[in-house]
Amino acid sequence: MTGWACPAPLRDYARVVLGHGGGGVLTSELIEHLFLPAFAGGGTPVDAAPTDTAPTDTALPAGALADAAVLAVGGLRLAFTTDSYVVRPLFFPGGSIGELAVHGTVNDLACRGAVPLALSAGFILEEGLELAVLGRVAQAMGRAAAAAGVRLATGDTKVVERGLADGLYVNTSGIGLVPPGVDVRPDRAVPGDRIIVSGPIGEHGIAVLSVREGLEFGGDVRSDTAALHGLVAAMLAATMPGVHALRDPTRGGLATALCEIAAAAGAGVEFTESTVPVPPVVEAACGFLGLDPLHVACEGRLVAFVAEADTDAVLAAMRAHPAGRDAVMIGSVTAEHPGVVVARTAFGGTRIVDRPLGEQLPRIC
Amino acid sequence: MTGWACPAPLRDYARVVLGHGGGGVLTSELIEHLFLPAFAGGGTPVDAAPTDTAPTDTALPAGALADAAVLAVGGLRLAFTTDSYVVRPLFFPGGSIGELAVHGTVNDLACRGAVPLALSAGFILEEGLELAVLGRVAQAMGRAAAAAGVRLATGDTKVVERGLADGLYVNTSGIGLVPPGVDVRPDRAVPGDRIIVSGPIGEHGIAVLSVREGLEFGGDVRSDTAALHGLVAAMLAATMPGVHALRDPTRGGLATALCEIAAAAGAGVEFTESTVPVPPVVEAACGFLGLDPLHVACEGRLVAFVAEADTDAVLAAMRAHPAGRDAVMIGSVTAEHPGVVVARTAFGGTRIVDRPLGEQLPRIC
Repeated sequence: MTGWACPAPLRDYARVVLGHGGGGVLTSELIEHLFLPAFAGGGTPVDAAPTDTAPTDTALPAGALADAAVLAVGGLRLAFTTDSYVVRPLFFPGGSIGELAVHGTVNDLACRGAVPLALSAGFILEEGLELAVLGRVAQAMGRAAAAAGVRLATGDTKVVERGLADGLYVNTSGIGLVPPGVDVRPDRAVPGDRIIVSGPIGEHGIAVLSVREGLEFGGDVRSDTAALHGLVAAMLAATMPGVHALRDPTRGGLATALCEIAAAAGAGVEFTESTVPVPPVVEAACGFLGLDPLHVACEGRLVAFVAEADTDAVLAAMRAHPAGRDAVMIGSVTAEHPGVVVARTAFGGTRIVDRPLGEQLPRIC
Repeated sequence: MTGWACPAPLRDYARVVLGHGGGGVLTSELIEHLFLPAFAGGGTPVDAAPTDTAPTDTALPAGALADAAVLAVGGLRLAFTTDSYVVRPLFFPGGSIGELAVHGTVNDLACRGAVPLALSAGFILEEGLELAVLGRVAQAMGRAAAAAGVRLATGDTKVVERGLADGLYVNTSGIGLVPPGVDVRPDRAVPGDRIIVSGPIGEHGIAVLSVREGLEFGGDVRSDTAALHGLVAAMLAATMPGVHALRDPTRGGLATALCEIAAAAGAGVEFTESTVPVPPVVEAACGFLGLDPLHVACEGRLVAFVAEADTDAVLAAMRAHPAGRDAVMIGSVTAEHPGVVVARTAFGGTRIVDRPLGEQLPRIC
């Protein structure tokens, strides 16, 4: 138990704050300055692992964080990802923590172009949780997995004392297979790429908020939670090499997804704010609460970076799929201002779009 | 959100109790009567999944729960497992939640005969946790993974409000590759098999208890936490077909491991109580606390069911490996009393050994 000293950019925080889980700047700092150095340490470089089946990420340079790792194993490319779900409350309009836990992890695999194969389910239950509630969550997971054609293959259950887990938390990890010829990763976005959003943004976040805070925003709003691997398969069927980068804008919203891809690719992003599909109820809620819709989580949308020449084909394929029927092009990648995301506003000006620092909407997934 | 009715054996429990996470009878009931029906439901049978790479467990019949699932993927056999770690306190003599999270999941893969390839790490952090504590845990994970030659390939971080996660919880999931010719699973144990324990039992559980309760038991006790895949590789090098079943006796201890394999194999287990290596400090602590050493968790031991003809070779291979140098044979599998575990006592009698009903030592891993 040697002392541990926190490296520079984390030094202002001696303790974990909610923002460290928000998917924004603080989360990135935690990953880059705490987890990655710790996990890389210990003396054995990854590429020197002692078996000839040692997995190595086939595509990503160190530091370019993707939705899932892709490992070369015995001639296959396996995608592997994990997510814990702590959403509060457990049930909300349009879904529950059960659907989220399946869709979220399936979508992380899909955003590497992988065909999802199997999920694990690790439950942390609070003593006193009604078994009927657990049953409803498990059944929601079973239904969502069956609908997605993915198997819940292995599981684990722990119980902690009353007061310690807010009902339940669940982790799902997922494995998938990247088909030959598919190469989807954040750093493949290049200047000229067109940027497509698969549908209206922000509905998941506002749906959870509405029930959590007991607010009404002048209209029904339901979570957009959905599995996206079918949509991705349709896009890849239209063009395999032309689909460069995909991301599902969950915590931190569309703004964070665009910023992360801009940073990973070392390229600039420009989009027209008025083309981003924001449902009226999301717009009303964000106005009321002082939120930027670009920062509100979706759980059934993706943003795609597509080669210019393939844009029409990909848009057509998306619109022909139920999960992408409202897909629209919102902007493009530029060689200017690398790493920076710029929105063209309704007034003809521009503004820089950044990730939220920390946690705008805690416990949203 | 339709109503959910709990099937028979769970009907006496309307709510989650600590015992549901204890790895004993209640945990099994939760899996068999709540999770498996929910996860199997939804209309799509596993074998009818819509891709030609649909994974199926290559070995286990339904209901024979193993440490890891084995999936047939593109000509490979992938092992896949998950565990959440909620041990309290986070640091204890001999290790921390960090080592446990790596070793426990590596060992679940090893107990299917798999070579571990990669782990995921999903953190649930409590607001207010000192970053220095998180750093020490992450570094322990990094060191343990590097020592085991396993990559921490993907991760996730969520933060919950103060008071809701007891510092931190971590889930690790693992993938591994089952080498050709290896077939290790609980239902392969057959009458005549010899039963080998790899070393002294109970040290992990007593080490955690000692620091948690501030007790001293007349001697130092340190957790046995260790990765066992190297030991398993040495055993399989001695005989691939002769290693029938393996289990690491964690929650519920050696008794639970023996009972689960007896049940899965539909065979009886007999062992001589005096041959089970119980360190004096574990014996003293169990006497003081009224615990059965057979129910106390290990985190770096395994129990092996080995073909009679291969017993000497396997024992020799185990004793030549640092993780198995105290390996001993404790008993054998019999065609009598299928599913029942019988101990021969020091007084020449016999007693039936059962799993604990619920949680003898909560939050031990």
